[in-house]
Amino acid sequence: MGLYVAFEGIEGCGKTTLANLFCNWLKQKGERVVLTREPGGTDLGRRLRELLLFSDPSPMAELFIFLADRAEHIKKLVKPSLDAGLWVVSDRCFLSTLAYQGYGRGILDLDRLRDLCRLSAGGLVPDLIFLIDVDPEVSLARIGEADRIESEPIEFHKRVRRGYLKEAKRLKAVVLDGRNSPSVLLNQVIDSVNQMLAASSGKTT
Amino acid sequence: MGLYVAFEGIEGCGKTTLANLFCNWLKQKGERVVLTREPGGTDLGRRLRELLLFSDPSPMAELFIFLADRAEHIKKLVKPSLDAGLWVVSDRCFLSTLAYQGYGRGILDLDRLRDLCRLSAGGLVPDLIFLIDVDPEVSLARIGEADRIESEPIEFHKRVRRGYLKEAKRLKAVVLDGRNSPSVLLNQVIDSVNQMLAASSGKTT
Repeated sequence: MGLYVAFEGIEGCGKTTLANLFCNWLKQKGERVVLTREPGGTDLGRRLRELLLFSDPSPMAELFIFLADRAEHIKKLVKPSLDAGLWVVSDRCFLSTLAYQGYGRGILDLDRLRDLCRLSAGGLVPDLIFLIDVDPEVSLARIGEADRIESEPIEFHKRVRRGYLKEAKRLKAVVLDGRNSPSVLLNQVIDSVNQMLAASSGKTT
Repeated sequence: MGLYVAFEGIEGCGKTTLANLFCNWLKQKGERVVLTREPGGTDLGRRLRELLLFSDPSPMAELFIFLADRAEHIKKLVKPSLDAGLWVVSDRCFLSTLAYQGYGRGILDLDRLRDLCRLSAGGLVPDLIFLIDVDPEVSLARIGEADRIESEPIEFHKRVRRGYLKEAKRLKAVVLDGRNSPSVLLNQVIDSVNQMLAASSGKTT
């Protein structure tokens, strides 16, 4: 059985690179892996992603579009893949909604947002979440042409970062220092995954 | 000040025709009117409507797309129009979500759905809701080429109709008999609107 592993963090933190590296590592071990992302992991999601990044929805419409994307993603891709024994490696998960819509935009109280996140994901949560923490001043400088959300003011991204760190504690996410090189980060990810696999194989024997 | 008036009912019940007739009547009286609809009353909404009718979202994704459409619609069109003193005549409102997603699909308990509806509409509800009640066997026969939702089995539309009637009672919506001609229905609508206007002018004097 594969695990459901999500990579999280603000724009330009390096999560896409790390998700790719981790995927390659899994494949080299002979695992079957689905590499996916939110928003945009399904056909419908790709169309919703376009609307999110290149139109200008009101904050509440934005929230519901993210939730629609997630509902479709979990139902049509993540859950069936896990049920088929595959690993699922996801660039973002519900934690992004808490960080961006909750802390960044402050449109809804966090308990209500957590409830909506549970609803959209059908109660499914990643087995492991890696948060790559980095100063927005550093990460935003890495980005080329910015989309609508990347173009938010620096204060927005700072609130998102603080939100990530707070929620990571609640969720027991693994916080990685984004100033490290991708290969250092990959080794930390592999260590955590191996620990989890060892713990779960310990449980079943 | 204009009122916010919504027309509701199952596919083919005649609500679009009646909304148009009512709009014309208002315009002839010299009122400024916005005729709109859910889904699809805004630019974003028109793109979401396409996804709803011509792709195949999972039930929960469908719900969230409808809520996104409504959030955008209320925020960007309905509320500003009312604030500017216009009438807003809408083909569908949150009651459709209760009837279709609640009673039709049964994906969520009704209280939770009501709460999501309030959230999407920012607490705004129509001053008057007209439900055109008609047997689905009759109304579906009026439709030419059916979209995804119109193509649901007759049992689905029967549940939706029952849901509409139940919720109409709670909401004190005006239930109209869809077997009547459009001109008879229009007169009933005008009567109700005049009653409401008389009552509210009575309140303010």
